[in-house]
Amino acid sequence: MPVNKPVSRILQYRNCLLKFRSLGFKKVFSYNLGEEAGVSPEQVRKDFSTFGIKGRKKGGYFINELVGTINELFNSNQSQQIIVVGMGNIGQALTQYINNDESYVRIIAAFDINPVKLRMKFIIPVYPVSELGEFVKKEKIKIAVLAVPDIAAQEMCNKLIESGIYGILNFTPLILKVPDNVIVSNVNIQNEIEELIYLVNFKK
Amino acid sequence: MPVNKPVSRILQYRNCLLKFRSLGFKKVFSYNLGEEAGVSPEQVRKDFSTFGIKGRKKGGYFINELVGTINELFNSNQSQQIIVVGMGNIGQALTQYINNDESYVRIIAAFDINPVKLRMKFIIPVYPVSELGEFVKKEKIKIAVLAVPDIAAQEMCNKLIESGIYGILNFTPLILKVPDNVIVSNVNIQNEIEELIYLVNFKK
Repeated sequence: MPVNKPVSRILQYRNCLLKFRSLGFKKVFSYNLGEEAGVSPEQVRKDFSTFGIKGRKKGGYFINELVGTINELFNSNQSQQIIVVGMGNIGQALTQYINNDESYVRIIAAFDINPVKLRMKFIIPVYPVSELGEFVKKEKIKIAVLAVPDIAAQEMCNKLIESGIYGILNFTPLILKVPDNVIVSNVNIQNEIEELIYLVNFKK
Repeated sequence: MPVNKPVSRILQYRNCLLKFRSLGFKKVFSYNLGEEAGVSPEQVRKDFSTFGIKGRKKGGYFINELVGTINELFNSNQSQQIIVVGMGNIGQALTQYINNDESYVRIIAAFDINPVKLRMKFIIPVYPVSELGEFVKKEKIKIAVLAVPDIAAQEMCNKLIESGIYGILNFTPLILKVPDNVIVSNVNIQNEIEELIYLVNFKK
């Protein structure tokens, strides 16, 4: 999947800024951010310039201001309503997690093929998959979280794309085949854990 | 964080194999795997060779056999018991998710500073953070999932390392400072979503 590196780094810088702020800092310089994020100060300034973020060359950046600017960049004029497909453990968990008070992203509906799930009480409405297409069009949803069993992943992915979804956050371990105009972001927690276990044991 | 690329790719190949299997395939060739994973067939064969995985040069690989070999590589002789620190939404969700029937990894205990959490009923025991050090040593735990609020992340990370933890699956958005012998794997769901939203909106 082609990852837009500057975008990743900008979000990484924000994480660094939050850390500095939590340590009591009010201002940072590009070399502070670079050191923390593992890139050069020049890269930091270049990335900021790419996104039109201005700093004071000598005086550094005010953390609160910079966090605000980055948040604006990511929050403004953008679709913030997303859906989840699959209300198993991970789907439910993600809904709880993403729909927290501080997040500006909202999962507004879930879709599942299991009739039991449709009758259960969740913090968001759960609809049958047959209503997916209509809902996506009506609510102008562009992004979906895919949290279905592996065996259903590609089929459901196709259905999402047919319905007008352009971005998929893929929590299944499968590598999805999608057209060029669709972006898939893979979050494979199981792989992350297995890799970590392997590396930790390998090092010893 | 230095990521051991061959390890990631081997896990990626397994995902591809699972996909091929779900499509009804019994055998694959290195070029099938390469195409699916976005690397060259030579890279696939090289990675397999690095991990001592043997194939039939002409005949390809039997999917079931290869999945079994990769699973063995990751499961055998390795610590599979891990802990979670922080039993908020994400900690609870991960415990549910990781401790599913098919997973060989088990979260065997959680730690939290909130006395309310200690009295609540979860699928695993929850202990006060003050008992962390003793537990990790007694149970020979090497890996922890960090799911505490941002403000507590670095402090809890330090405590984990002091207790003898070598691998941290970091679900906080913070970039943790750790000694060279500790491996951190970052899973920042919030960033993934924001990046996806940005890219999808940017493309249009």
